[in-house]
Amino acid sequence: MLQPYLEAIRRENPRIHCITNGVSASLCANGLIALGASPMMAEDPQEVEEIVTHSQGLCLNLGMPNPGKLSAMALAGGKANQQGIPVVFDPVGVGASGLRRQGAQMLMEAVSFDAIRGNLWELKCLSGELGHSWGVDAPEVVTQATLPQVVDFAKGFSQKTGAVVILSSAIDVVAKGNTAYVAYNGHPMLTQVSGSGCLLSAMVAAYLAANPYGPQNACLSAVCTMGVCGQMGAKKALGNGSFAVELLDSISNLDGNMLDQEARYEVF
Amino acid sequence: MLQPYLEAIRRENPRIHCITNGVSASLCANGLIALGASPMMAEDPQEVEEIVTHSQGLCLNLGMPNPGKLSAMALAGGKANQQGIPVVFDPVGVGASGLRRQGAQMLMEAVSFDAIRGNLWELKCLSGELGHSWGVDAPEVVTQATLPQVVDFAKGFSQKTGAVVILSSAIDVVAKGNTAYVAYNGHPMLTQVSGSGCLLSAMVAAYLAANPYGPQNACLSAVCTMGVCGQMGAKKALGNGSFAVELLDSISNLDGNMLDQEARYEVF
Amino acid sequence: MLQPYLEAIRRENPRIHCITNGVSASLCANGLIALGASPMMAEDPQEVEEIVTHSQGLCLNLGMPNPGKLSAMALAGGKANQQGIPVVFDPVGVGASGLRRQGAQMLMEAVSFDAIRGNLWELKCLSGELGHSWGVDAPEVVTQATLPQVVDFAKGFSQKTGAVVILSSAIDVVAKGNTAYVAYNGHPMLTQVSGSGCLLSAMVAAYLAANPYGPQNACLSAVCTMGVCGQMGAKKALGNGSFAVELLDSISNLDGNMLDQEARYEVF
Repeated sequence: MLQPYLEAIRRENPRIHCITNGVSASLCANGLIALGASPMMAEDPQEVEEIVTHSQGLCLNLGMPNPGKLSAMALAGGKANQQGIPVVFDPVGVGASGLRRQGAQMLMEAVSFDAIRGNLWELKCLSGELGHSWGVDAPEVVTQATLPQVVDFAKGFSQKTGAVVILSSAIDVVAKGNTAYVAYNGHPMLTQVSGSGCLLSAMVAAYLAANPYGPQNACLSAVCTMGVCGQMGAKKALGNGSFAVELLDSISNLDGNMLDQEARYEVF
Repeated sequence: MLQPYLEAIRRENPRIHCITNGVSASLCANGLIALGASPMMAEDPQEVEEIVTHSQGLCLNLGMPNPGKLSAMALAGGKANQQGIPVVFDPVGVGASGLRRQGAQMLMEAVSFDAIRGNLWELKCLSGELGHSWGVDAPEVVTQATLPQVVDFAKGFSQKTGAVVILSSAIDVVAKGNTAYVAYNGHPMLTQVSGSGCLLSAMVAAYLAANPYGPQNACLSAVCTMGVCGQMGAKKALGNGSFAVELLDSISNLDGNMLDQEARYEVF
Repeated sequence: MLQPYLEAIRRENPRIHCITNGVSASLCANGLIALGASPMMAEDPQEVEEIVTHSQGLCLNLGMPNPGKLSAMALAGGKANQQGIPVVFDPVGVGASGLRRQGAQMLMEAVSFDAIRGNLWELKCLSGELGHSWGVDAPEVVTQATLPQVVDFAKGFSQKTGAVVILSSAIDVVAKGNTAYVAYNGHPMLTQVSGSGCLLSAMVAAYLAANPYGPQNACLSAVCTMGVCGQMGAKKALGNGSFAVELLDSISNLDGNMLDQEARYEVF
């Protein structure tokens, strides 16, 4: 079922404008290329709107924020909404500082997001369920036992925002309105690559850009792509350095057949 | 013929000051080291002139521009001209925004460049032949059929600017005044590494710094180095991630003999 | 003897706040993860103090400075002192510009550092022994012949600053007050990875954070970790690109036993 979503990226080669951070910029760019998309990085308020007009998707990442970059994100997001191209929000560490909390809130008001991706703490903090919390390292892990209530939260947050809500954990959740997938791929080594979450968010933007119909399935495809490639990479990696290399190799070598054979997900 | 140019870098270990972007900074630094040069990154207007006085070459890269960095580039370029050290310009995505177009024009007026490197769209936009265009992804490919007119353009742009003009494509062109080389090395995988063009520009600066006599041959050596190492890397790579690793390995293992044996170029 | 220091990091998983530069940010983040720590990057003055309150260690890196980042470093360092968490200073290229010299001096006055790590030129420039000098590339190498006077310098600088002084060279020195270790691990390939020094400084912060008692031994453990992993990586690397990958693999695979077996150091 996921095959056509991946193939659409390879065929369309969508240009994805990323406003991201200095730690993950290179991984996001190379991961997007491996996936079949074309990365574009630009973050000055003076040019982001114009860059959006050349792009098919936009990914806004809250890592290493500063006031100028937050303004650029609001401008880019507004322009993307106007142009009708998908916008993804990755609220990296939103609970970690007032600058991030207020920046995220400003963006949630200024921009209509097509997808929001984070770990449970980031999403809960963003939703207002937690006042002040730490959200970079996903201290709370989703298990089978907590899954029903986590899925309910994701559905509720999707209904509230209109976005596909993607929750990354040992078990991933992809919720839109009243429906949700849970996905079981992935590997603990993925948490050992700095920026792997940022890359997933960028890949979500690419999947959405190439698949304007069926955004929830597009997001599920992104999640499964990362999970399956993480598993493939982990089979060959000998440590943290080689895992990052193998992950990119796996993304570039993934085809739709392999994705469908290896993806493990269900409606929940 | 190219051997002494490479060996001069290994012997002189020139320090190359790069004002580049967050996506390619690490690749540029590590690629310069692999080549035998010494990278120095600094981009604040308050320090770039002083950094230039400690450097043997300068590379200005238009990726992810902002007004402060553009000012720093003008200051650094002016100082480099004063000091008589070579300056390379890489007009990344110059057609993509007004900030880039105007920044590039400002730099072309403020700085005398020893070499300018880009894809065909970037160079045409920079030369004023195209008003507004997209230049990041080289949508126009140079073929044998279009080569004569492309070489004419490169020669004309070199005559206008006084710089060696380096056009990166499936076939590369290195023009100075009325003479041009075309070079046939390279591999499609090179387009799959984000920042490989930025690295080539930084390598051009290193070749020029170590070879003050014969700038056109120095630039040709840089182009062939990247092309030959791309071919060597592609033979061993299993995907996009390992290609970037193999590319750096190949650059560090390249010797002048191998470069001369594998380089394919001719006067055109 | 070093084993418990490494194991404390693996057990405590300390969060290390790095204010670093765009060239080494990704390597620092991934190296910290490989070591067993948790990286956090944030550099805007508006959020750094709050980020410090969520962190167990702080690393300030002078590479690619700008006035805003220097202010952020002073704020973060002051907060870390207040909170009693360790602060490491890496005066990258301090001799290279007035911005760096004055920024470093401002930080030395504003912040009480637990450790300072650099090459001989950087440390001498920072100590005021050299007026204006170039310090990025360690032009002066420590040998057995110059070791006594270098160790004396490091001890004196430690006494003056109260910090553990870590001097990186072919022979490393770890001085605190009147006592010093010299360490003999390492490999020339380590100088071929851009940012390996920055990573070592970040690893020092992790070792100090997880080992509040015995800071000098914690710093020695960091130095030996990098040296031993450099040696292990070099055995498998085929060039500069693969060395960086093998280095990260080696850090993630290192255990306390291997570290103790391979570490070569003595009191001097």
